[in-house]
Amino acid sequence: MRCRFPPSHLPGPAKGHPLSASNGLATAQPTDAAFAAFRTPRSVAVVGASADPTKWGHWIAKGALKGLTQREVWLVNRTGNDVLGHRTYADITDLPGVPELVVVCVPGNHVAGVVSDAAALGTKAFLTITAALSAPDAVRDVLDLHGARMVGPNSLGLFDAESDLQLAWGEFTKGALAIVSQSGQLGSEIAGFADDAGLGVSRFVSVGNQWDVSAREVLDDLVSHTATEAVAVYLESFGDGPEIVAALRKLRDAGKPVIVLSTGASESSRRLAASHTGSLTSSTDLIDAACRAAGAVRVDTPLELVDLAGLLGSVGVPAGNRVAIVSDSGGQGGIAADVASRVDLDVPSLSADLQTELHRHLNDAAATSNPIDLAGAGEADLRTYAQMYRTLASSGEVDAVILTGYFGCYGTDTPSLVPLELDVADELADLVALHRVPLIVHSMSADSPTVYRLRDHGIPVHHDIARALRSLGHANLARIHQGRTVAPLDPIRLGPSDTYGNARDSLQQHGIRFAPARTVTCGADVEAATAELTAPYVLKAGWIAHKTEVGGIALGLADAALATAALLDMQQRLGHGEYVLEEQDTDRNVVEILVGARRDRDLGPTITVGGGGTEAELWQDVRTELAPVDVATARDMLTTLTSWRLLTGWRGKPAVDIDSLAAVIARVSEILVADDTIAELEINPVRVGPGGSLAADALVVRRADTEGPR
Amino acid sequence: MRCRFPPSHLPGPAKGHPLSASNGLATAQPTDAAFAAFRTPRSVAVVGASADPTKWGHWIAKGALKGLTQREVWLVNRTGNDVLGHRTYADITDLPGVPELVVVCVPGNHVAGVVSDAAALGTKAFLTITAALSAPDAVRDVLDLHGARMVGPNSLGLFDAESDLQLAWGEFTKGALAIVSQSGQLGSEIAGFADDAGLGVSRFVSVGNQWDVSAREVLDDLVSHTATEAVAVYLESFGDGPEIVAALRKLRDAGKPVIVLSTGASESSRRLAASHTGSLTSSTDLIDAACRAAGAVRVDTPLELVDLAGLLGSVGVPAGNRVAIVSDSGGQGGIAADVASRVDLDVPSLSADLQTELHRHLNDAAATSNPIDLAGAGEADLRTYAQMYRTLASSGEVDAVILTGYFGCYGTDTPSLVPLELDVADELADLVALHRVPLIVHSMSADSPTVYRLRDHGIPVHHDIARALRSLGHANLARIHQGRTVAPLDPIRLGPSDTYGNARDSLQQHGIRFAPARTVTCGADVEAATAELTAPYVLKAGWIAHKTEVGGIALGLADAALATAALLDMQQRLGHGEYVLEEQDTDRNVVEILVGARRDRDLGPTITVGGGGTEAELWQDVRTELAPVDVATARDMLTTLTSWRLLTGWRGKPAVDIDSLAAVIARVSEILVADDTIAELEINPVRVGPGGSLAADALVVRRADTEGPR
Repeated sequence: MRCRFPPSHLPGPAKGHPLSASNGLATAQPTDAAFAAFRTPRSVAVVGASADPTKWGHWIAKGALKGLTQREVWLVNRTGNDVLGHRTYADITDLPGVPELVVVCVPGNHVAGVVSDAAALGTKAFLTITAALSAPDAVRDVLDLHGARMVGPNSLGLFDAESDLQLAWGEFTKGALAIVSQSGQLGSEIAGFADDAGLGVSRFVSVGNQWDVSAREVLDDLVSHTATEAVAVYLESFGDGPEIVAALRKLRDAGKPVIVLSTGASESSRRLAASHTGSLTSSTDLIDAACRAAGAVRVDTPLELVDLAGLLGSVGVPAGNRVAIVSDSGGQGGIAADVASRVDLDVPSLSADLQTELHRHLNDAAATSNPIDLAGAGEADLRTYAQMYRTLASSGEVDAVILTGYFGCYGTDTPSLVPLELDVADELADLVALHRVPLIVHSMSADSPTVYRLRDHGIPVHHDIARALRSLGHANLARIHQGRTVAPLDPIRLGPSDTYGNARDSLQQHGIRFAPARTVTCGADVEAATAELTAPYVLKAGWIAHKTEVGGIALGLADAALATAALLDMQQRLGHGEYVLEEQDTDRNVVEILVGARRDRDLGPTITVGGGGTEAELWQDVRTELAPVDVATARDMLTTLTSWRLLTGWRGKPAVDIDSLAAVIARVSEILVADDTIAELEINPVRVGPGGSLAADALVVRRADTEGPR
Repeated sequence: MRCRFPPSHLPGPAKGHPLSASNGLATAQPTDAAFAAFRTPRSVAVVGASADPTKWGHWIAKGALKGLTQREVWLVNRTGNDVLGHRTYADITDLPGVPELVVVCVPGNHVAGVVSDAAALGTKAFLTITAALSAPDAVRDVLDLHGARMVGPNSLGLFDAESDLQLAWGEFTKGALAIVSQSGQLGSEIAGFADDAGLGVSRFVSVGNQWDVSAREVLDDLVSHTATEAVAVYLESFGDGPEIVAALRKLRDAGKPVIVLSTGASESSRRLAASHTGSLTSSTDLIDAACRAAGAVRVDTPLELVDLAGLLGSVGVPAGNRVAIVSDSGGQGGIAADVASRVDLDVPSLSADLQTELHRHLNDAAATSNPIDLAGAGEADLRTYAQMYRTLASSGEVDAVILTGYFGCYGTDTPSLVPLELDVADELADLVALHRVPLIVHSMSADSPTVYRLRDHGIPVHHDIARALRSLGHANLARIHQGRTVAPLDPIRLGPSDTYGNARDSLQQHGIRFAPARTVTCGADVEAATAELTAPYVLKAGWIAHKTEVGGIALGLADAALATAALLDMQQRLGHGEYVLEEQDTDRNVVEILVGARRDRDLGPTITVGGGGTEAELWQDVRTELAPVDVATARDMLTTLTSWRLLTGWRGKPAVDIDSLAAVIARVSEILVADDTIAELEINPVRVGPGGSLAADALVVRRADTEGPR
């Protein structure tokens, strides 16, 4: 039933931001001839081809020769001696034609010469394996002069299954997974695991140092690559973050699941932040936000990546997070259920009707509530395993089935059982193709005929139950994160915001609600202000960013006399400046939420919400998304917080006005995006109660005020 | 250098609770002859031996016959036909002698007869494989009558490497790991992984339904089992929790690391709790507490168990959590560092001196700050890998070294490199034996000669970097959790505690500090009380357990008039009962901490601390230990809370009196243990400020008040 990465099973992309219809980012697919030479060159020259199997030039030459039926392959070696039984040329200028693609694997001090000579001949595409170049500027100049393109330097190579192009170390199995990697070796590791899993590779591009051809371009190029049904990406820098997000989303929208591996990028950018928002947001949070916007899933390791690809390659994304666990051992079922709950899967109790139906195939000792314990029924009749899947998959009560335990071992113990066990494996495959409810098998056997048969059918089989469940947990994320359009907005310019009073006024003009307030400079001002405002009052030293720490905020001022005293005290301690007297919100049913937007140097505008009030940094209860977000997305962000339960009514308190809070979040995200002079915009806290949301402090940092945000 | 589970590397047991010198629990090792028959029987009869390879009786017979050089093995089969080329007896009464151990694998309706006949002959030890018995009571009666012992029913069997005793399905490799399992199949899975890892099994006991011989007895018996150097335990019920904890700690104290696999036991017990403490504590929290007390480590899956055993089996427990990551790929080093941080390992920056030393073996492109990126130096000279380990292991700056990437693959790509790569593997093993700093290798090769050589040397090698780091994270827990004595205390009887006022008075007599208070029944009482107490006051309806929810608490009463009004209001709404007027603590620098003790039906007395004040259930910031705890342990509990940072001074606030809080925790744990009539004792919150700790509410539930706590 082998049915890889069925696009119909990827939920469609979510609607875009209502303020913009275009995705706003140019991600034109590279279609020029030079770029095509990285996919389907008509001729390849390997410069530095070597007979020594410890040299890269040996392996590249060996790989290149596999494509001899598709193209001319010329080997260049200074000695002119044969390599791998093929003649070589002593110099690139000796070749009988102009190579469309030149692979450079010569010592660093020879690279400039090779590139220069080849470019002079007319070569427009270079793949540079060499890592350290003696004359990098000379190479760059040659590329510019001739309009030539280069993958690398420090690339581990290219592979394209369709065109028999292998210009990389190692062996590749042809398949459906494209691998684009900033680390050649991690890309190779992914390719190796993909081979083990029977997935294979459609294209492999080690982008190396990305002097010219970027990961983003390679990703764009995969959109139309028919052999590629899923994409694995390893990125360690997000220098053109928004463009990469757009490229990933295009792949996803084309029905190709994208799985991202990354390390803690943009950490240094984050450390420059002036607001709480910055310290609340890790680099991984930002990458996760980018992946959600792209509709991609981030994983922690190469193996997790391939496990997820293998699962998505069976019948696509599961329809929900409900999993049935079928075990032939109560212990294994219990362990599986515990691990499932740790990866946010639901192991629901099954309905009485379904349990009755399951029991028809089982004996009295069996448990059917989920986990299902066959209690010997599988051993008694191997067909029970298929019956369990059929009953569960057609019930509508679960979205995936895990089979855990002995299946796959029966034939190993008792060879006479092999044919029956294989029959059941075939039956399972037919049933999966019919019901399209993902099945993952955990088998105590690592390599029995049944295990291989299941894999041949595209059913993921794992020797470790945790891998089975983690891949399903990741697939669940692939279902939830459908991607969304994160577009620039029409420009605006927020008014003055150097002080709290100014920021208040400017933000109010853009729809953020604050409590009534007056600027005060003396006792008379306070008298006049208190005549118009409702007590109690709060006095704020408006020009100070972190007021609390310096005593620049006085709460609970009951009358004009107390307010005046507070003003005089602050003026004495802090000097003269902007003092704002504000009505103090005393609603006991409010929840305090941090709302902060900031431009990440790599990933661009972001929006963060955080719970925990003054203890926000303690609880780290935050969610970050790329900005802008619409109100619905803002609401989704809130539902992911632990503090969500405070918003919906905690221990007898009334629920707060969540819609008003979502509107503030969306609005803050839009202001940051639309006013490109703003580096950070933080409202901390927003006080949200049953009657609405009120901003209680605001901080705006302009881009000129911080080091180099994007 | 193969050096398995060196006991000298297990830190010694921590000192016991200061109130008790004995461990207080009888865990006498079973030394009777009947029990010895489960280890070294002089004769074994397999009743139900079968020629049919799909029957258990076939496999048990096959295994039993492997011990023919050690003992008499008699096969019993009703037909009397040969089995596996050996004669059989039609009935147990036909045997030429009295079997010391009888293995019962006959249909359920024949078990009672077999046991009865054998016991009449004089057999004192039975291993019952059969799962469902027709006449269980008859079997129990026979055992009682004859003083015979039984493992099972529903056991998957026994294996003992030293005595060539294999009475179980499958194949076992002799080794150092004992497996005691309540689930036969999980035990088998562990044995299989132990085989893959080259660890092997010293003893395997599937305890089945534990009618008679319990897991605890089997564990006790392992203390003196010299072949056993580490113990794997799977338990799904903790019916005799404290005894099991004592048994595990004895193993640990004997230098045998104990690794526990479990599922969510005692969940039903927890659900009966009346206090917040109960709903804050998951069954996994309780099992983790038991493991910490025992000095054992709990893992989530069979594979994690064996990975940890393999690591501990190389050079024992690491001395700390600092790990150096050596990679030949920056990407792989980065991924490893990210995964390391997720399992609470520290990847410290290395000193300038050490980096200089490392750089002596590396080129300019290398990174040495940690992760260390060899940047081609490994490829250029394989001996670099050993040099890195030597330099790092002798530096004193790290406690473990992870090698990640290509090592193990060189010989596969280039067969001429095999001898050198093997040499480096040998050198690494010598260095590990010398420095005794754990080394774990992640190799992109799953099965090269070098990988096997490293494994032969006892160096853990993983194909998946996450497994390498998770095992090290678990080993770090093995270092931290050294076990402690959890002993009963001299009995006390807490005074009346049916109301808040009574509980206050009783707890104060045992050293728990409350604010001054008076019981009041009318305005005159309030007048008298306020004359003696300091305002503001709080009024509490003392007979109500959850006062807040019903308006049974009035805060911030400034004077006698307000207090009287509050009293009259409550009396009108809630009726007459015990009203307590108390001084209200208004220290703004306090942190509110929940302190709760309860008896778990399975695991006995426990003590829980929780942060988050009124949001404790939201943040789930809790730590539970078995009770009693001493003050030092109580303090350790606090350090594990997220709220710990609140206690040590949060955002400019002063640190609180942590010692006073630790004393309350220890005292509460002791009262619960010493007064065995108490089911739950909760002080929520304890208000701890710079000046000390004050209990602000108390709830005592007696055992008669709840369903069946232990």
